[in-house]
Order: sequence, then structure tokens, then C-alpha cells
Amino acid sequence: MKTSKVPEATILRLAVYSRYLEQAERQGVETISSVAIADGTGVTSAQVRKDLAYFGEFGTRGVGYNVVDLGGHIDRILGLDRTWPVVLVGAGKLGSALALYEGFLIRGFHIVGVFDIDPDPIGKRFGSIVVLPVDRLEEVIKKRGAKIGIITVPASAAQEVGERLVAAGVKAILNFSPHVLSLPEDILVRHVDFSLHMEVITFNLTIEEKKKENGSKAHRR
Amino acid sequence: MKTSKVPEATILRLAVYSRYLEQAERQGVETISSVAIADGTGVTSAQVRKDLAYFGEFGTRGVGYNVVDLGGHIDRILGLDRTWPVVLVGAGKLGSALALYEGFLIRGFHIVGVFDIDPDPIGKRFGSIVVLPVDRLEEVIKKRGAKIGIITVPASAAQEVGERLVAAGVKAILNFSPHVLSLPEDILVRHVDFSLHMEVITFNLTIEEKKKENGSKAHRR
Repeated sequence: MKTSKVPEATILRLAVYSRYLEQAERQGVETISSVAIADGTGVTSAQVRKDLAYFGEFGTRGVGYNVVDLGGHIDRILGLDRTWPVVLVGAGKLGSALALYEGFLIRGFHIVGVFDIDPDPIGKRFGSIVVLPVDRLEEVIKKRGAKIGIITVPASAAQEVGERLVAAGVKAILNFSPHVLSLPEDILVRHVDFSLHMEVITFNLTIEEKKKENGSKAHRR
Repeated sequence: MKTSKVPEATILRLAVYSRYLEQAERQGVETISSVAIADGTGVTSAQVRKDLAYFGEFGTRGVGYNVVDLGGHIDRILGLDRTWPVVLVGAGKLGSALALYEGFLIRGFHIVGVFDIDPDPIGKRFGSIVVLPVDRLEEVIKKRGAKIGIITVPASAAQEVGERLVAAGVKAILNFSPHVLSLPEDILVRHVDFSLHMEVITFNLTIEEKKKENGSKAHRR
């Protein structure tokens, strides 16, 4: 899929602003400044204004943004003004955790089918969902109109599962397997790699340790 | 923790370059251009050069980069030239999946302790690791020198677990619980929220749908 010109970092920040505005709304806040949004989400107010400017004019100069209006507008931009049926293939530990992941439900992502090739988990229940044999993948995707698939199978099975999802009508895939999928260009694939998070951590811990080492060397002189 | 001036996006890209260089090394590639790294990782070559420039001069003009040298250098920057002991609290489905996550092991993140407050999973084995009662958290952190903790407990327990990790000497936390941790400023916390990935997907699917709608409207005129 040719993704839009909007930088991915902007989309991710919009998702964070959306969470922050929801929280402000629950607390009864009616209007909010870009400075307050910035403070609450750890960015600069110039960044907030720049991110919002991709999508037209918001707010009134000197008054700020109406919390409900801005939240609604961001949610429409992100496609969160509706629910999205999602299928998940691979009912192992990670798949089971994701099938029950509250964060998905809260944001409108409804797991409508969980599939496995292994007979062992077939029939297991995750909430209202029963694990089905992967043979029924195409039927459920079509019946429920699922455009999004989650892959939590081992690397060796991921490519085949990806191709089956696409053949059945899925347009976007969240891939938790370590296999890098090779799929048609019009399919949006996001690869989730937990160790990337770890590397941001170890980058920063390494800098801190070097600072300390240099500090103690300087002290010894 | 005051993180470095290097943008997080640069650190994440370095982690991706590192993976790409490892693959090139396995394939016997000796020197590589910024254009080839860019093509292989989906960024521009100017971006590759800019990212590397944060850390000094690399490569020889017109010759490119030595694959092994550049890979080693990036890994040292990311702190991947060593192993990192990591403790994990919360042996539920997600915790179990992460305790066995191969991506961690490959990149040098060794889970040295898995803990739970619930007596049910205590004694369960994940590879060579046995789930321990959370009472033993401090002892294991100190004994193994763990500076990194992973939280996979329910939201209601996350804050207490975060405070215990920090009190025992942990400096960085990967938080998979939906609770936003409130911890001292010098602690690096990364919050993993799977639904953010979904929102990038639905943002793009929504744009595609609008394009199609507009296309068919134009066609009907």
C-alpha cells in the first residue's frame, strides 16, 4: 500500500493525543491549549500544532481546542470512529494474549476469528471467540468483512499465512512473527519486533554508563 | 532518565540497519553503500548518512562501508556488544510468550528471572527459567545485576511492581501493562501499546477507502 504523505511519527503522536484527549474529556475538561496537550504527551507545542496542521485548521486562536471536537476529529482521521473486525492466526501464547488484549477492544479492534493449524488449541475459548481450524480462515474473513489480520505463527509458517490472508481479502497485516513477509505492494504490513524497544533502552543505558565511566576517570585524575 | 539528543527514530533505524548488516554479512557481502542500506531498509540514503553522522565518520567516500566494521560499530552504539540480564514480572500469557521470545535471545537480552504474585504459575518452566514468587524479585535482580525489567502484570499491579523494580536497582522498564507508570525521572520507561500499530493501519485503510469513495463518486457524475 502506498501510505500517505503524513509521517508515521505524526500518526503515532495523533494516537497518543487521542488517548490524552479522552482522558481530559473524562475529567470534564472542555477546552485545551496545544501547550497543555504537549505537556501531557511529552512533545513540544509546536509539534502538536504541526501534526494537526496536516489535517486542516483546528481550534480558535487564544482559546485553544474544544476537547470533544478535537478528539472526535483525530479519531475520524485515525479511523477510530468505527469498529474494525480483525482475524488472528496462531493461537499460541502470544496469539492467546493478543486475542484477549483489552487495548484492542477499547480502541475498536474486534477480534472476530482466531485460527490455528495445530488441532491442539482448536475449540479453546478466548472470551466469546472459539479457536477454529485454519481451513475456515477464508470463510470467516469474507463473512465478517475483515480487512486486518494478525500473524502470531512461527516464522516458518508466516509467509503462507500472509498469502492466504491476502487472497481472502485482507488489506493490512500486523506481523508478530520474525519472518519478513513478502506480499503485494498494495498490502500494508507492520512488523512488530519487541527487541527494537529493548535496543532503545540499551542505547540509553550504554550512554549513561559511559558518562559515569568518564566521570569517575575525571575524578581519579 | 534524560535520554540523549539522538532522535528515537534514529535509534530505531540503527537497530534496523544492524539487522540488515548482519544479514549482508551472512551473505558474504564485504562492503556496502548507503544507497544499498537505504534500499534494503526502506529509507533514503541521505537518511542513512544523517543517522550515522550522529556518531562520527564512517566509510570511505566512493567505496562505501565495511559491513563487519559498520555492523560492529552500530552494535556498540546500541549496547549490543554484550548481553543484558533482564527480569520479567507477570507470568501470564503475554509474559510467557515474552519469556520464550527468540528475538530477545538473539539480540543479547537474557531473561534471568520470571516472577508472579499468583501461586499458580510458580514453578512453571520457560526453557531454563523457573517462575519464582515475586518475593524473590529483589534477590535475583541484585544477584544477576539486572538493569532492565519487563512488566506484564495487570494494570492494577503495575505501579507497585515498577516501584519494586526501581528500588531493587532496575534502571529501565519495558511496560506492557496499560497503566502509565509514574517513576523517578532517571528511570527510562518504554510503554508498549499494540493498538498504536493498529491505528497506523486504520489511518491508512481509512485514507484508501476515502480515495475509493471519491473515485466512484467522480465516476458516477
